[in-house]
Formats: sequence, C-alpha cells, structure tokens
Amino acid sequence: MKRNIGPVNALYPSLTTIVGAVVDGKPNFLAVAHVGIMNHGHPQYLSFGINKKHHTNQGIVEHGEFSVCIPGEGLMVETDYVGLVSGRNTDKSQVFDLFKGELAHAPLIQGCPVCMECRLARVVDFETHDVFIGEIVATHVEESVLREDGKVDIKRVRPLLFDMASAKYWSLGAELAPCWSVGKQLKAARRG
Amino acid sequence: MKRNIGPVNALYPSLTTIVGAVVDGKPNFLAVAHVGIMNHGHPQYLSFGINKKHHTNQGIVEHGEFSVCIPGEGLMVETDYVGLVSGRNTDKSQVFDLFKGELAHAPLIQGCPVCMECRLARVVDFETHDVFIGEIVATHVEESVLREDGKVDIKRVRPLLFDMASAKYWSLGAELAPCWSVGKQLKAARRG
Repeated sequence: MKRNIGPVNALYPSLTTIVGAVVDGKPNFLAVAHVGIMNHGHPQYLSFGINKKHHTNQGIVEHGEFSVCIPGEGLMVETDYVGLVSGRNTDKSQVFDLFKGELAHAPLIQGCPVCMECRLARVVDFETHDVFIGEIVATHVEESVLREDGKVDIKRVRPLLFDMASAKYWSLGAELAPCWSVGKQLKAARRG
Repeated sequence: MKRNIGPVNALYPSLTTIVGAVVDGKPNFLAVAHVGIMNHGHPQYLSFGINKKHHTNQGIVEHGEFSVCIPGEGLMVETDYVGLVSGRNTDKSQVFDLFKGELAHAPLIQGCPVCMECRLARVVDFETHDVFIGEIVATHVEESVLREDGKVDIKRVRPLLFDMASAKYWSLGAELAPCWSVGKQLKAARRG
C-alpha cells in the first residue's frame, strides 16, 4: 500500500562532494550532494545545483572553472564543516591541503581520493538555484584507490552518501551484481 | 600521490532508478542511474540524462510527463532487464505491476518502494544526450518504508547504487553521522 507524501524529492542517497572555486582571489569550498550526471561520453558533463545566495557562485561564473572533489569517510568532519559555514564570513582556503591541475581556478583537495577539474559549460537558471554544468577536463585519482586497470575502485574511495530525510551520511555497502548482466536471465525467460 | 586519468566521470555511486513514460500509447521503462538533483525547494526539480537514441525520449516530449521510480534490491533483475532491452523492439509494459497517480502519462511501478511523478519542465540539449528536467508532482511511498514522521526510511528502501567503473550494483551501507552536525567540532575548534 502506498501513500502520496506530496512532491518530495526522494532521489537519495546522492554522492557527497566538495565543490571548489576561486572567490575573491581565494580558494573556497562547499559541501554539495545535489549533483547530477548529464551524459555518458566525451565531452563528459556533470552538474550541481546550489542556492543563488551561496558565496561560491560568483567565483564560478567569474572564472568559468570549478572543481568537484570526492571525500572519503576519513574526511567527513571537514566535509561537513565546509557545508556548515559560508565563505562570505569564514576563510575556508586553509581547511585542506591543495594542489593544482590543469585549470588555474579549480582548487583541488589532496585529502580527497578523487578530484575532478571542470570548465563551466552552462548555467541552468532556476528561481532560487543555479545549476552549474561543467565539462570534466581532468580527473585526479589517488594511486591507492586505483585498480590495476587504471579505473577508480569505489570501495576503496569509501564515499559519503547523503540522505536528506535522515539528514545523515551513509557508507557504501557491498557489491551486489554486475550491471547489464544480472537481467539477462529475465531477457532469456521472456523470449521463451 | 595522484594520477591524472583523463576527463573521466567519477561521480559515483549514483542512484539507480527506473524512468517510465508512455510511448506509442504504451508504458515503457528504462533503467537510468545518470540522475541529478537540481535544487532543494518547491517546486522541486530533478534530472536524468539519456542518449537521444532511446525509445523513451519521444514519449516524454510528447506528453510532457514521466515517472522516476526507485527499485529496491529485490527488483534488481527486473531493473537490469529494462536497461538491457529497448522499447523499440521489446514490449516492456508487462514487466511490472503498475498504478496511476495524478498524471495520465507517468506510469508507476507497484514493486518500487518509492515512485515520483514528474512534469517535464525543461530539456537541456547536448550533442548526444537529452537531459530531461522534471518538476516533482507527487511522491508515492510504500507504507513499509515510511518512518513514523512520514519521511522515507532509506535503509528500508534498500536502493541499488550504480558504479560505472566496476559496472556493478552496490548496496547502501551503514549510517555514519548526522549532516550539518558532525562538522561542528571543527567549527568550534577553528573559531578557537
């Protein structure tokens, strides 16, 4: 039996990220879990939506660049912190050890196992929110979370999953089954 | 030590959903994990991006409505199946028991613990992909996964998390800590 709970966003868990930009000449960071994957291909686009009031927005628009870093469980406190305080009245440029990639205005976080540099491709304008769509320029991955084939080992990343209803961070669980594969039994059965 | 692995999308895991639409007069379904959260508010918007070649796209544009249902682990085989075969040559209207909500062209899946009905708000046009942005009209939740306060209990949903690098479905793990809270210790410490 189902209950209609109204127009509630239930698209959770979502991946907790730290978005970085240069604002007023300084690196600034913000915890963002309202992210999106736009496509699968090259160029590859991702999105995140944040309230227009955020300090970070102006830096992204000004420089047309930003970073999206993925913290592991070990960086939970710092991640939550940069979501608690605004860059408008708090200097967050010293919270993390940083490094530079290819872009001048996409500050990257050493402590995050995965860091993506993005060039701003589009801004989708909503009443209260800017949705920034970035083209991924480079992805920097800690050697310790890379598999032998050079791909990211998500289990070793230990991502922080965000859920709005519980207002909690959750961990990644066990692997269940291969995609584009586990459904083949049904495909065969339906073909009879 | 980090390695630049090129412009690789590493925004995973993402939530596996089943997008539903009415195409050529029939309900059709597609597994989609490339979803996004646009904002936090009312109206509430979500997105998903799929290749323009998909059969589903025309139905969404024609009717301006679609559904986004969240399958639990128990529906993994069926979910994978609707991602394996195209509605162009396979009738997927009988795979699930369906129900109707408020919209005429947003087929909802009984077996999914959470089902959202969406009105198409915008289409963001990429070279190979359509990104459909929908306004959530209603969210139907199985009583068994609702908490006493009427919110979704994500642990009981048992969502399927998708990871492209491993090409696997993953389960949700344990809760870690409260958001907008666990970082307060650092806030206090940095204020000295």
